[in-house]
Parts: sequence; C-alpha cells; structure tokens
Amino acid sequence: MREERLTKKAAALDAADELACTRELFALDNDSVYLDGNSLGALPRHVPERVQDVIARQWGELRIRSWTEGSWWTAPERIGDRIAPIVGAAPGRIVVGDSTSVNVFKAVVAAMRLAAPGRDEILVDATTFPTDGYIAASAARLTGGRIVSVAPGEVLGALGPRTAVVLLNHVDFRTGRLHDLPGLTAAGHAAGALAVWDLCHSAGALPVGLDAHGVDLAVGCTYKYLNGGPGSPAFLYVAERHQAGFDSPLPGWNSHTDPFAMDRDFAAADGAVRGRVGTPDILSMLALEAALDVWEGVRMEAVRAKSLALTDFFLECVEAYAPEGRVVSLTPAAHGERGSQIALRCAEAPAVMDALIARGIVGDLRRPDVLRFGFTPLYTRFGEAERAARVLGEVLTEVPAAARP
Amino acid sequence: MREERLTKKAAALDAADELACTRELFALDNDSVYLDGNSLGALPRHVPERVQDVIARQWGELRIRSWTEGSWWTAPERIGDRIAPIVGAAPGRIVVGDSTSVNVFKAVVAAMRLAAPGRDEILVDATTFPTDGYIAASAARLTGGRIVSVAPGEVLGALGPRTAVVLLNHVDFRTGRLHDLPGLTAAGHAAGALAVWDLCHSAGALPVGLDAHGVDLAVGCTYKYLNGGPGSPAFLYVAERHQAGFDSPLPGWNSHTDPFAMDRDFAAADGAVRGRVGTPDILSMLALEAALDVWEGVRMEAVRAKSLALTDFFLECVEAYAPEGRVVSLTPAAHGERGSQIALRCAEAPAVMDALIARGIVGDLRRPDVLRFGFTPLYTRFGEAERAARVLGEVLTEVPAAARP
Repeated sequence: MREERLTKKAAALDAADELACTRELFALDNDSVYLDGNSLGALPRHVPERVQDVIARQWGELRIRSWTEGSWWTAPERIGDRIAPIVGAAPGRIVVGDSTSVNVFKAVVAAMRLAAPGRDEILVDATTFPTDGYIAASAARLTGGRIVSVAPGEVLGALGPRTAVVLLNHVDFRTGRLHDLPGLTAAGHAAGALAVWDLCHSAGALPVGLDAHGVDLAVGCTYKYLNGGPGSPAFLYVAERHQAGFDSPLPGWNSHTDPFAMDRDFAAADGAVRGRVGTPDILSMLALEAALDVWEGVRMEAVRAKSLALTDFFLECVEAYAPEGRVVSLTPAAHGERGSQIALRCAEAPAVMDALIARGIVGDLRRPDVLRFGFTPLYTRFGEAERAARVLGEVLTEVPAAARP
Repeated sequence: MREERLTKKAAALDAADELACTRELFALDNDSVYLDGNSLGALPRHVPERVQDVIARQWGELRIRSWTEGSWWTAPERIGDRIAPIVGAAPGRIVVGDSTSVNVFKAVVAAMRLAAPGRDEILVDATTFPTDGYIAASAARLTGGRIVSVAPGEVLGALGPRTAVVLLNHVDFRTGRLHDLPGLTAAGHAAGALAVWDLCHSAGALPVGLDAHGVDLAVGCTYKYLNGGPGSPAFLYVAERHQAGFDSPLPGWNSHTDPFAMDRDFAAADGAVRGRVGTPDILSMLALEAALDVWEGVRMEAVRAKSLALTDFFLECVEAYAPEGRVVSLTPAAHGERGSQIALRCAEAPAVMDALIARGIVGDLRRPDVLRFGFTPLYTRFGEAERAARVLGEVLTEVPAAARP
C-alpha cells in the first residue's frame, strides 16, 4: 500500500514534469537507475556521431587545416560562452580547458595577486573536495601566503584584515550541502577579500548567478551535471572587473595576445582568454561542446525546481522504505541549503552500495560510511527515485546491521 | 631529365624502405602530400573505432563503472609506459596528462626545488618555443629564481655556480636544429645544475635516450610524431633518482597516494604518478593510447635512419628544383644537428606556403619568412619528398621574388 501510494505519486510527478522530454536525449535505459550523474554525467545520444566527425573528418581528412580554418582554435572561449548562461555569466567571462585542479591553481594564485597588499591568508573550507585544499596550499606556498582552514559555518568569523582570498565549494561533495554563495561572497567583499568558488557540484544543477552575485573568480567541472564525458575539460570564470588584472601563473602561448607571432616576450590576451594555457584538448573539448546541446531551451529555474522535487521525493521514499535507524540524511532538509544529491550516512555503507549496484541502483560510496545519490534533473525520473529508495529498503533489510558500540 | 632521375631515385628509396608498410596504418591519400606531422600527426586508421568504443560503450553503457572496473583510472601511467620505450625510458618514469605548458611548469618548479641551495638561475634557450619561456619565467617568479636567456650555442658558457636548471628544446621548432642532449645534460650536471628537456619535436622522430643520458626531467607532446590527435595530452618524465624528491607545484587529488580516501592532507604517491594532477581527460587519453599501436615492432634506429634519408633527399630535390637564391635551408646539414623537419628561409614565404597548400603540398609557415616541412618516417614517402620539392620549384618560379633591399 505504501508502495502503491508512492509509485502513483511518482507517476503523477513524472507526468507533470516540464523536463521529462530531455531524458530521451541521453543514452539511458530502464534496466538500471543511474544516480551517479554527480560523478559522471550520462552520455547524450548525439555525442558519438559528433566526435566521429571531429576524428574522422576534421582530424583525419582536414588535418592541420582544422586549426586554421575550422572550429578548433577558438573552442575554449566559444564553449565557455555556451556554459556562461548556465552559471549566470555574460559572454567573454568563461574559458574552458585543463582540469579543475589546474584551474583552481590559476584562480587562487591570480586572486592572491589581485588582493590588497598585506593580505596573505587563503581561507579554505575544511571539508572541501581535497584537491582544492592541496592546490590552495601549493598556491599559498608559492605566493608567500598561508592557509586558514575553517568549517564552512565558521567562515564569517574567520574573515579578517589578513584575508586575501576565500575559496569555497558551492555544494559540498560529500553531504550535498549548498553554501550561501551570495551571502559569503558579499561577506568576503565586506572584509576586503576576493571570493573564489568551486562550482563542480552546482554547475548545471542549480542557478548560480556568478555575475549577479559579484563573484570574483570561479572554476567548475563539466563532466558531472554538464555531461561532457569522462575527464572533460574544466572551466574558469573571471569577473569582467578583474580581467585586465588577471595575472595567470600559467601564461602559456595560448594566452598570448598574438600566439602565432611566437614572441619571446609574454603579452597577455584580453578577456577570459588569458586563462588559456597550452594547446586545447580538441577531442574532449568538442565532445563537451556537442553535449551542451541538451541545454537548448532549458530554464535553470525549472532545473532547480525539479532537483528539489526529486530530492524531496527521494527522502520521502527513503523515510517510507528504509528500516528504522539504518540511514540518516547528511543533506540539509532546507531547500536553501541543498544541492542536487542526497547523502545518507549508513554504518554498512560499503556492503549496501555493492548490493545496490548489483541490483541496478547506481549511486556511489564516499568512504567510510556515506551513500551518495545524485539527481540530474535533465534525465532522472521520479519513478527512478522511488525505485532506488525501495531497493535501498530491501537491501537494508538483507544486509545485517553492524554491531553498535 | 632532372625530374626523371629524382623520381627514379625516390622510387628506389621507397622500394627499399623498411618502414614502408606503416604508411598503410594512417588515413592518408595521394591527393596531397602531408608534411605537417611536426604540427599535427596524421590519424591512424583504427583510432575512430577505438574512440567510438570509449564513448558509446565505456561512457554510454558502463558509465561510472569504467572508472572503477575499466581502464580509465590508470591510463596516465599505463600510456606513459607505452611512450617510455620510444624516448628511452624504463617503465614507471613517464606519466601522461595536461598540456605541454602545464608539464613544463611542473618540471621547472620541481627542478628548482631539487636544485642545490643558493642556485637560483634558470637557463632558457632564447629561441625556445615561446610557451616554455613564458612558463619558465612564471616558475622563476614564483620560486624566487631568475631567468637567464641564452642562444643555444652559448649555454655552455652561461653555466655557473648559480645555475639551478637548464631548460632546453631537443629540436628547435623553427629551424629543426637538433641540440646535443647527451652533451648539454652532462655539462649541466658537471656545473651542478639539473637538465630539463622539451621533447616536443623529437619524441617519435628520433632516439632520445632519456635514461641512458641521465636526463633529470623531460616533457613532450603527443600530437606531433606520436599522432595522438589534436591537443592530445602531453607527458612528463621524472628520472628514477628524482621521484622521491619530486615536489609538484600542482599536487592534485590524482597524485595523492590514496586518492579515494579524500584526505584533507596531501601525501604524494610514489613514482611518476605524482606528476598527475586532476581527473585525466579520458577521451583524448584513450585516443592517444590507440594511436600508439602503430609503434608495434618499430625500431627507433630505423625511424632515425629514414628521417635523415628523407630530409637529405628533400634537400637534394630542393637544390635541384628551386630557382637559385630563392630559398636557404635553416636546418643544419650535419646529421648530428638535424631533427626531422626542414626549414627553408624564403622572403616570399607567406605567398609561397599559400600556393603550396593550394596545390596539395601541406607544410606550414612560421612568420615572417620560414617554410616548414615535417617528415614523419612512419608515413612520409620519398616520392612525396620529391613531389613537394618539385611543386615548390614551380611555385617559386611563379611567385615573383620580393624586391631585395
């Protein structure tokens, strides 16, 4: 009866879903429920054919002409302009290329160079995705700065006259907690610091509003909610007011104002292009460009509304199906504090996730005890959220509870 | 008669060519002569199908499982081991990923950290491909070093007690001059410095002997003579004796000893793996892995012998066909000083290259006055060298000589 009620509710929610039709754009079947789009987005169906053209015709037949006559050279800024509306940026402020880690390095070093004299502290979220912390520490070491590591809730209290840069994750990769980007950016500015945001878990999942909220610099990945493919290039946002002063620690020939002059002396290009470094990785970049076609006509407000409805409904189903006391949500209940994933703490998480995957419910494990389920509004159905929670309930019934201390 | 003699000679050389059969592995036709493999290598015919599998099956069907169960996670070191024999390195010393520029940054900063105390100078070839110079300057600025820019012939005289690092190109991108890697490495060591080599124009074109010659660190690109595709990831070599001390300025989560522990503190992995940074770019990386199949059974000595024979023969044909005084070779005649390209200085170079390309002879222009022709031993035929020189002779006859000062 409980199952009947929830499957009916799921069907009604799916029937009313404004984004139901984008599901068909992805290579997904009904054999499994893919809830790991927050790690690797699913394949848009048209991508293989587009990449085949890049390889067989653009590389195989046109060869070097594709650099000079084709679409290759300008791909980093062109694709940046495609991502811009998804994260609330005007054209010319985003460039695509390199990994997220490398872009964190560019952003943090550049931010240190933009900071007011005497400011040497980089405030880093203590629960950050680890690479951001490692790279920030390297940037601090190379620029004479120092790292101040604080829990996200303590950022406001840690801002001070020495704070140069605040590096934060928009959504926590483990818990799915959404941090207050407008408020923390404003607080950073009020304290005289620059705000650098990592959008890996928010770009494509919810409205970001980079320009509107005055973010200074931002980075993000494109293989999660933007479905660019495994290891697809990351992006870097540079606010317009910082572009002239953006002083990259990685000034490659691609960020030179006249790359083919092959000048011995470096002269930075104008705009976000100065975030480029070496030769762009064309296969991955043009796969990403193709993947971005699925955003045609999609409103970010609809994405956000569906994301919240999906996660609300999944939590409702988990509450209904899971045996008492076996899982606890680490993801905030408040909409204003929730990204697009649900993280459940479970003492038997490794065994439970193995069993889930064996039954076609694909989430992932964050050691030691977190079950992560990502909800991608462009392709996740309410019916899948119900099915995932139902199978989770079954699995929890079968996997014995660990002995409690 | 001149033409008859040279076409006969070309046919004889092609008939005797040990590497003639590898040509069939590439997507090339006889409509044009592709002499730009030193900029973008031609497509190996089997690559499209392999990449299709990566996209449609590994990403499209297996999705996240390809990271954990498939071949993705270890690709950077596995593909490094495939490149290793081509440049004379043992397994475990090369890692693939990021652009050449980013790898120059890792190598130069790491070399500065390995250098003896009190040494702060980075000696850089004044005619280097520009990105190396820009990145070295950034590395100097961030590590408290200073750049000493010298003509390659003056490196020996510039070595001194303050020299920390010597950053050199194995083959000059403009002239095709091959620098003395064994001798300059030994001289650097004798002066107490580390030698970092850029192999972009030698990897896959000639034997390098990284281990044998005691090179400290090296970088190289994979889209020229290694045919990895446009912007395919670069590689980084770390000599075994430096691996424990290799201290990367880009310590990403992929270079952590236990990446999935998601530790807050960084602990570097062992071996060349610590040259990794962020999530590897799988589409480009696995395209490169497929492309490396063409090296199966190829001896680097045969590659070198054919490269020299091709460039000798091309110079002989140019001498025979080109009107007197219109082109001068910038590439050394001595085999020991020649890479795998011929650079011709020509006052009318831009118009001449346009005309050549229009007639199917694809070289490239290096502003203001250099015609570059790359010879890829795995696919360039002697008959093509003759044809290219003959068409060049025709074009020079038609393009009026510029007025001389």
